[in-house]
Amino acid sequence: MDDLMTIIKQRRSIRNYSDKEIPEEILQTLLEAVQWTPSWANTQCWEIVAVKDTKVKEEIQQAVPASNPAFKSILNAPVVLAVCAKYGTSGYYKEVVTTKFGDWFMFDLGLATQSLCLTAHSMGLGTVVVGLYEHDKVNAALHLPDGIDNVALIPLGFPTKVPKAPKRRDVSEFLHYDSF
Amino acid sequence: MDDLMTIIKQRRSIRNYSDKEIPEEILQTLLEAVQWTPSWANTQCWEIVAVKDTKVKEEIQQAVPASNPAFKSILNAPVVLAVCAKYGTSGYYKEVVTTKFGDWFMFDLGLATQSLCLTAHSMGLGTVVVGLYEHDKVNAALHLPDGIDNVALIPLGFPTKVPKAPKRRDVSEFLHYDSF
Repeated sequence: MDDLMTIIKQRRSIRNYSDKEIPEEILQTLLEAVQWTPSWANTQCWEIVAVKDTKVKEEIQQAVPASNPAFKSILNAPVVLAVCAKYGTSGYYKEVVTTKFGDWFMFDLGLATQSLCLTAHSMGLGTVVVGLYEHDKVNAALHLPDGIDNVALIPLGFPTKVPKAPKRRDVSEFLHYDSF
Repeated sequence: MDDLMTIIKQRRSIRNYSDKEIPEEILQTLLEAVQWTPSWANTQCWEIVAVKDTKVKEEIQQAVPASNPAFKSILNAPVVLAVCAKYGTSGYYKEVVTTKFGDWFMFDLGLATQSLCLTAHSMGLGTVVVGLYEHDKVNAALHLPDGIDNVALIPLGFPTKVPKAPKRRDVSEFLHYDSF
């Protein structure tokens, strides 16, 4: 296996996949990567819906604007993972919000998403994190109960096309010492 | 090097460190892990302040409640990384918010934080993500300009005590197929 830095640097956003199915044991391994992600006071606010059914994918795709570069990926991917959050736990203490940032579900889902996408890449799978769409339509398509909300969609499949890396800021551009 | 799943599963929140300094090249490597993290439309909204100065650490520690289990870690760690966000880029398109979740900085900082903490662990370093404190006091201590906010603190050091893993939900408890 590549070392971790190679995995981090070579992971790309993959939007084109072969029609090869994802074996169930690979899916379980990816979800183990989520399971062992840290979270606010170990609240683990994540819920994941693995969408394989074409009808559900079609319904989800209707929430995504056709201008989104991942529009076709929703139907093209053998599995779409809907990353969802349970509200009112992360960032809370005894049911009261503890910081100016309110509910911390976005931060914890970000942690979990990176665990999942790095693990997928290390196993030869491609992912792309999709955030730009009408979330309430996806909530309805997935029959999410009150208090649980979909935040991101992650189409998942074996890559057929690997894009070039978008340019990154140099470390020196965002690293400061002791004071900004 | 351990494989990625071992790194993910064995990373713990470390709150006790030896007084061994962090070599500058290790710090740069950790920041490269942030650099290559994906972000909303590659907006890379992160800014990191590496705090080594004891006076700045003391000022930061005053923002943390003594009841926070990471209270002592702030002074104990050879380096404290302050993870900060530039507002108004992640989640935006042409300066307009695009989803019901508003600014996506929390999600992107979560992604970057997991890259950093996994890389630190793979290099024998310990981290803990601290979120429960008065953020505006830390903003002042770091002289952050308007539009940039500190979100989390990550004390970093060589571990002297590795706690047991807190219990996790089984994958079957948070994985659903096609519908919740």
